Amino acid sequence: MKFVQPLSRGVLLPIGGAEDKTGQRLILRHFVELCGESPRIAVIPTASAFALDTGDHYCRIFTDLGVRSVECLHIDDRQHADQTATAARLEQVNGIFISGGDQLKLTSLIVGTRLGAAIRRRWHEGIVVAGTSAGASAMSRQMIAFGRSGAQPSQRMVQLASGLGLADNLIIDQHFTQRQRMGRLLTAVALNPGMIGVGIDENTALDIHPDGCCHVVGVGTVTIIDGRQLEYTNIHRAKRHDPLTVTGAPVTLLTCGAQHYLSADVHQSTTY
Amino acid sequence: MKFVQPLSRGVLLPIGGAEDKTGQRLILRHFVELCGESPRIAVIPTASAFALDTGDHYCRIFTDLGVRSVECLHIDDRQHADQTATAARLEQVNGIFISGGDQLKLTSLIVGTRLGAAIRRRWHEGIVVAGTSAGASAMSRQMIAFGRSGAQPSQRMVQLASGLGLADNLIIDQHFTQRQRMGRLLTAVALNPGMIGVGIDENTALDIHPDGCCHVVGVGTVTIIDGRQLEYTNIHRAKRHDPLTVTGAPVTLLTCGAQHYLSADVHQSTTY
Repeated sequence: MKFVQPLSRGVLLPIGGAEDKTGQRLILRHFVELCGESPRIAVIPTASAFALDTGDHYCRIFTDLGVRSVECLHIDDRQHADQTATAARLEQVNGIFISGGDQLKLTSLIVGTRLGAAIRRRWHEGIVVAGTSAGASAMSRQMIAFGRSGAQPSQRMVQLASGLGLADNLIIDQHFTQRQRMGRLLTAVALNPGMIGVGIDENTALDIHPDGCCHVVGVGTVTIIDGRQLEYTNIHRAKRHDPLTVTGAPVTLLTCGAQHYLSADVHQSTTY
Repeated sequence: MKFVQPLSRGVLLPIGGAEDKTGQRLILRHFVELCGESPRIAVIPTASAFALDTGDHYCRIFTDLGVRSVECLHIDDRQHADQTATAARLEQVNGIFISGGDQLKLTSLIVGTRLGAAIRRRWHEGIVVAGTSAGASAMSRQMIAFGRSGAQPSQRMVQLASGLGLADNLIIDQHFTQRQRMGRLLTAVALNPGMIGVGIDENTALDIHPDGCCHVVGVGTVTIIDGRQLEYTNIHRAKRHDPLTVTGAPVTLLTCGAQHYLSADVHQSTTY
């Protein structure tokens, strides 16, 4: 029996939230450029508590940036997300933009529906998927649903749930330096040994190419904790809010222009 | 581009813990029979706080049941689990038995190592994997690491982590009726929409065949919550210990001899 890996993926562009929307709009412009000469973008504002406004806002920004075809997918409930017609609205786009808000609201409505499957399939077919804040967290399969701030990891610091499943080996966190999320990302890596934690600052994005090569866009830092090299964690011994021991997982900090190679494993649908 | 699904899997036999070890040993005997005419079994007692004793105990039971080749894999640390020689010890077996204890201890030591990959690969090659209690929970990819008892689901009731990844769409819980775990399984399904929650009673097992057809062995009940049909959950709105709303996910209760079809999806390495 052979395991045949999917042959191609699109670019993944997780953004750490609070990206510039009024000035040079470096990150949003970069997303539009990634979509090619004739960008056709779908905005999914479902994570937002004010989804109508959030959707309109991003649609206006992308139109301002010269995109002729932008549409907003407003999702009312799981039944709506599960309709074939809803999923079909992604067939003609070459970029999907997922807004911020509450990642658990987004995934409660979309994960496990035809729309969730269509986002994944279209990305595997090569289109670009960008997401900011909650939209960045929701990209991974093991998603940080919520958690506490602080530099120190502890066993109960983070709550995981299922995300969209675009990157099986990544766990993405956002507003990273601004909200002191080092502790919760380390905890997430300890709970998911073998995975790579990616913490993205505000107004900062990580452009991840299908071959695993990635570079930083924006003003802040991207922090990578490579749990594939985890030597030891006492997460099964530490109780509740005890601090954790985590050893061996190298930490990499990248800033604008820096390149890093996450290895092709990151984009395997399942790692064997 | 095509997604080619793995063609075969072995039988998966999650056991709800406290299986009969001294009487008829119906479940353990069933596992041995599943391994074929010449069973060669590896016992992985890593979850246990008394791994040496636990390993010896199961080795003696399987020897009593007529198995000529039983060996115990004692894993000291992640480096040991990551050695090629450790993983190679699974090459000749046709059954793996994973003991109870603490699933987070097991996964902290094994997930993301060569041994973890070998368990998955060998199962995909068709061997049987059984696990009891912690060993049953650890089979799924989204693993219940720990949580609270009670019938009522609430947002903070359950902590998830990465398991061995044998069944991507299942979330397995054990000691199910005995420890009142309906609430935490419902919460786990709400956190992972589209997945199937499987709650297994003590001294009870679910024999899951590669085609998704499964049947119950033992004295208790297996409870299945099919989150693929989840209509709505307010998990993004409910705070901390508020009770949750979960609608539309059918609940099925099966007892000894009952058959059920989980659909082939359950065994896809990734569902699209």
